[in-house]
Amino acid sequence: MSWLFQFLAIVLGLISLGWAFQLYGKIKEKDEGTEEMRRIAKAIQDGAQAFLKTEYQILAVFVAVVAFALAATINFPTAIAFVFGAVCSGLAGWIGMHTATRAAVRTTEAAKTELASALDIAFSSGAVMGLTVVGLGLTGLTIMYMVLQGTGGDPTPVFGFGFGASSIALFARVGGGIFTKAADVGADLVGKVEAGIPEDDPRNPATIADNVGDNVGDVAGMGADLFESYVGSIIATMAIGFAMAVKAAGGDLENLDLTLTTLPLGVAAVGIAASIFGTRFVKTNDENKLGEALFRGLFVASLALIGLSFVLGVIGSFGDGFGTLEDGTWFTVMVCIWLGLVAGVLIGKVTEHYTSEKKGPAQGVAAQSNTGAATNLIDGLSVGMMSTYGPILIISAVTLSAFWLAGLYGIAIAAVGMLSTLGISLGVDAYGPVADNAGGIAEMSHCDPSVRKRTDALDATGNTTAAIGKGFAIGSAALTALALFHSYAKASDLTSINLLSPNVVAGLLVGAMLPFLFSALTMKAVGRAANQMIEEVRRQFRTIKGIMEGEAEPDYQACVAISTKAALREMVIPGLLAIGAPVLVGFVFGVDTLGGLLAGALASGVMMAIFMSNAGGAWDNAKKYIESGQHGGKGSDAHKAAVVGDTVGDPFKDTSGPSLNILVKLMSIVALVFAPAFLAAHSSKADEKTDASEAVSTETGESPTKQEEQAPK
Amino acid sequence: MSWLFQFLAIVLGLISLGWAFQLYGKIKEKDEGTEEMRRIAKAIQDGAQAFLKTEYQILAVFVAVVAFALAATINFPTAIAFVFGAVCSGLAGWIGMHTATRAAVRTTEAAKTELASALDIAFSSGAVMGLTVVGLGLTGLTIMYMVLQGTGGDPTPVFGFGFGASSIALFARVGGGIFTKAADVGADLVGKVEAGIPEDDPRNPATIADNVGDNVGDVAGMGADLFESYVGSIIATMAIGFAMAVKAAGGDLENLDLTLTTLPLGVAAVGIAASIFGTRFVKTNDENKLGEALFRGLFVASLALIGLSFVLGVIGSFGDGFGTLEDGTWFTVMVCIWLGLVAGVLIGKVTEHYTSEKKGPAQGVAAQSNTGAATNLIDGLSVGMMSTYGPILIISAVTLSAFWLAGLYGIAIAAVGMLSTLGISLGVDAYGPVADNAGGIAEMSHCDPSVRKRTDALDATGNTTAAIGKGFAIGSAALTALALFHSYAKASDLTSINLLSPNVVAGLLVGAMLPFLFSALTMKAVGRAANQMIEEVRRQFRTIKGIMEGEAEPDYQACVAISTKAALREMVIPGLLAIGAPVLVGFVFGVDTLGGLLAGALASGVMMAIFMSNAGGAWDNAKKYIESGQHGGKGSDAHKAAVVGDTVGDPFKDTSGPSLNILVKLMSIVALVFAPAFLAAHSSKADEKTDASEAVSTETGESPTKQEEQAPK
Repeated sequence: MSWLFQFLAIVLGLISLGWAFQLYGKIKEKDEGTEEMRRIAKAIQDGAQAFLKTEYQILAVFVAVVAFALAATINFPTAIAFVFGAVCSGLAGWIGMHTATRAAVRTTEAAKTELASALDIAFSSGAVMGLTVVGLGLTGLTIMYMVLQGTGGDPTPVFGFGFGASSIALFARVGGGIFTKAADVGADLVGKVEAGIPEDDPRNPATIADNVGDNVGDVAGMGADLFESYVGSIIATMAIGFAMAVKAAGGDLENLDLTLTTLPLGVAAVGIAASIFGTRFVKTNDENKLGEALFRGLFVASLALIGLSFVLGVIGSFGDGFGTLEDGTWFTVMVCIWLGLVAGVLIGKVTEHYTSEKKGPAQGVAAQSNTGAATNLIDGLSVGMMSTYGPILIISAVTLSAFWLAGLYGIAIAAVGMLSTLGISLGVDAYGPVADNAGGIAEMSHCDPSVRKRTDALDATGNTTAAIGKGFAIGSAALTALALFHSYAKASDLTSINLLSPNVVAGLLVGAMLPFLFSALTMKAVGRAANQMIEEVRRQFRTIKGIMEGEAEPDYQACVAISTKAALREMVIPGLLAIGAPVLVGFVFGVDTLGGLLAGALASGVMMAIFMSNAGGAWDNAKKYIESGQHGGKGSDAHKAAVVGDTVGDPFKDTSGPSLNILVKLMSIVALVFAPAFLAAHSSKADEKTDASEAVSTETGESPTKQEEQAPK
Repeated sequence: MSWLFQFLAIVLGLISLGWAFQLYGKIKEKDEGTEEMRRIAKAIQDGAQAFLKTEYQILAVFVAVVAFALAATINFPTAIAFVFGAVCSGLAGWIGMHTATRAAVRTTEAAKTELASALDIAFSSGAVMGLTVVGLGLTGLTIMYMVLQGTGGDPTPVFGFGFGASSIALFARVGGGIFTKAADVGADLVGKVEAGIPEDDPRNPATIADNVGDNVGDVAGMGADLFESYVGSIIATMAIGFAMAVKAAGGDLENLDLTLTTLPLGVAAVGIAASIFGTRFVKTNDENKLGEALFRGLFVASLALIGLSFVLGVIGSFGDGFGTLEDGTWFTVMVCIWLGLVAGVLIGKVTEHYTSEKKGPAQGVAAQSNTGAATNLIDGLSVGMMSTYGPILIISAVTLSAFWLAGLYGIAIAAVGMLSTLGISLGVDAYGPVADNAGGIAEMSHCDPSVRKRTDALDATGNTTAAIGKGFAIGSAALTALALFHSYAKASDLTSINLLSPNVVAGLLVGAMLPFLFSALTMKAVGRAANQMIEEVRRQFRTIKGIMEGEAEPDYQACVAISTKAALREMVIPGLLAIGAPVLVGFVFGVDTLGGLLAGALASGVMMAIFMSNAGGAWDNAKKYIESGQHGGKGSDAHKAAVVGDTVGDPFKDTSGPSLNILVKLMSIVALVFAPAFLAAHSSKADEKTDASEAVSTETGESPTKQEEQAPK
């Protein structure tokens, strides 16, 4: 069946791109509004463009260097796949940003007449991002696989595609996170607090950078993050499926059945069909039913995926491919896919519970603001920590069930299932920043308050979907990293990563430390960048005459340039850490220590990501809850305390937290790609290693049976 | 040599207790000062007494229930050892608190004349705590071992002693942490902020509770924490040593060489001698050399330990005992002990770097206070996260080196080495709260400012030693938990805990989540308890006439009672979690999943403990740095911002952070004690388990060699 799955992947990937292009065309047809609106939108477009241009110039150098290193240490196909993966992810980010910055102003214009068409434009822009990510991801990966596959259909060379995607994700997420928060904090602290002008006021020099930041962080950053998860989960499943096929054929590489190897491509393909189908159901003119409309789309897509994947399974079951599965049948594999799908939604819902202003936790944080900033902060921190248990129990339950249903393959394909409807779920998520920008443009161009009211309704719903999207991004990153971890073990010929070996435990501890160090670095980076931004805004207020009277225009692009430079400079050290740590540990200490490192980073990284994202979300919405008139409303002491919490939460939820998704995935894929090189480097040390592991096993008793006899009563 | 080691342990343990008693006598001889001072001291003594009485009543019930459960599920000797361990730990806590509350007022009185004698009393009180902990810990454990040992000298029954000590530690640390912060926050928020009266003002109803809290948290809580580490590290080493002896003798239980089994008792014994020797060097009358004097004591004790343990090793080397060691010699074992000793000091020094007001990190937090509470908080959080890497690299390096030098035994004995000089290092640490209380009494009893100046000098040094002590407590907890983890594996007949098994990974994830959940629960508990305290203090200010004029005395004991009740009520759920989670996972999922759970909890628990303790320390000292006149000094906006950070840091560093030490150790020892029961419960499921593990190993390839042939180029 493998030809069918590959065929479907290419065809539906292209359809996805075509659909996105057609949606883009429709968006472009809409009216851009007044001259003033066009001018502001142009500034945002130019700022975003400038950031991407500078970023991609640096990335081009980085990609060339790494590609060269890969060609030298691994092989040429992996290097090609790496470059192609980086290009596809970068292109998806560019298309998404380009569309979002053009859609925002048209959303504002449409909001002048009715909500439905405003929603349509904003959501279409999100859908362009979603469909471009899955379209480029799936066709890119499938083409690479068809061109570069090794003997018997070996997917190893395409690991490089995942590595390329991960590298872009690192820079997009970390750099984007630093960009957006430096601009945000700078704009708020000087503009709102010192100069006393409202948010999105055109007199504030950092306001364009702030709006650019929304696109950079929440559109391009989020898109690259999920592009990586999408591609990574498929690659991990292909690797595990191929190993099983090899084993079932008894090593006869000429006649392998690649059904399981290519099944994830097929699932992703029908996921695209389901997503496009789902987008047709996102329509409403009632501002209280915006969330409902978006969820209807997701729900329909999920149902469609279940049906389509069932058909896929039935077709697949006519061949012998599922026979290479040691545990489970074609049907249990399908159940794993569905489990992953449901788990993604559930994790999103848990996230919503801890962060929504309509639920207890965020309202509790708001209540604690009455006794000051300290109690607001303590409560927010504990809400964030508390929120880890739900997602972890869900992920653990899915892991155990999927393994029980279909072995390791089940775990990997569950990750594919979770991400299969990414076309629409990313669309729902990426709609938020467009709505946010639309509101900003309405404010800056002095539109009628009724316009802002409509965009605010879109924006509020966008905040909820963004929180859910963050939870989904973490959950899918965890499951993808887990699948990659197992592929890494296969690529390293590891049948055991023994926690009783001191090397593995040391790796585990150091691995668990890395997310803390990484978060510290990214938070410090935001602080430094924000300080520069503050200086610049103050300078402009001081030196540009007539700026406060609205007579002279601030130098918007100077602020954009500061955020851009800071973001690119500050991502170097975290980036080196993320790529350097696994390479160093793999070469120096070997593949089992690295296995411990990956497990440690996964375990503490997921917790920290959930903790930081949800604490940040709870603070944000506690502030909004107070602003809605509770506990004294805007300007009250409680509100001031809540603003402190919100400011602390900004780098938590928009920089450090989401960056950890990348850290855990990137380290896993680096380990996977370099596994053969680590093995080669350690083949000379093989004797030592055997000694060490013997020491462990002999010390712990010759055999369990024997120890049992000696065990004390 | 085993008789020698046991003999030494008993003799030096008794000497330690005798020395402590003699020091106590000397303290009691000193003058208690004026009537007013006595009255205040009496209130603190009564409050502390009342707390311990109530706590121990509840603990008695808890201990009885658990002892009964142990007798029913494990065996009778384990139950006896459990009760004895609990009693010894509880007694040590009582003696330490009793002494500290008596020493404080005498320190104040001595500070009226000269610094040297004030230091002498305060440090002697700390030494009483330190020597009581090691004396009761070592004699108690050795007696239990001599009385209850199994066939051939099997130490299994004394695991119960460690469990008993851990249970007390849980309640002392968690309960003590909640008590002290509820009182502290209550006293500060209403007294300092609302009523505008200074710290330690006798008109503040919560001030006695605040001073009691210092003793409850920093004396009894810290003491129980380290009692547990001390006993736990010895037990773990005994268990590993015994397993090696059994193996070396080929199962002939009649003629085992117990040198390695009892060596930790010998090392602890000479550690007591070294500690007592070191205490003689803590003397100075120069307030700038206080820290120097304390470190001189530690340094001398460390040198003495190195010398004495070397002698111990030489004597031991005359027998055949070290021959049962598979890797290493008597000398490499000694090197492991020294490595542990040095690592403990180094971790303390790293902690000092991140928290001292004389170093960059805390000063950086102070500088960030200029732009408000939010930037102060962001910086403090990142300092805490950043501070994880030093201790983790040290612990990992010690683990790897010790394993290389002397196998698993080396890792365990390194933990014993780190804790061997606990008699003096706990003394240095427990001196802090006595100095703190002495200052409080000076303030409340309106002593001459010169007295307060001397006690402040003592207190400032106490803050530094407390920070180092916290780092040391975390480091030793980590190494002890690691040693216990290996003993658990031996007790469970596990030769491998395979991270490629989904059960183990699920255990790892859930384990890594528990410290986050536990911290959230304890932080919420502090919040609730503090709210009650706030209400009570407000009520007294409102209803007791003449209280503000100093004419009527506040109802101090009502505040003590609130903290006491809240502490005991709030520790139930965290306690159930810490004991219940490993028991549940062990019975339901089996010993390998539980192994994953322990590893996950260790990895994330240590990070969170370091993060929270050091963030709290940095905030605390950033505030003190500003109060010393920097950035506008007291009352400036920077100071206000720093106060917010300090308040957030309070539950971080004094409740949640330190409680995590207990969580990781307690879970390990619960697993160790119940391991036989888990195995028995799962013997019926053995077939299933074999199937599952086969599935893993077969899917990952029949043999590494074979996969290597098929591995892609």
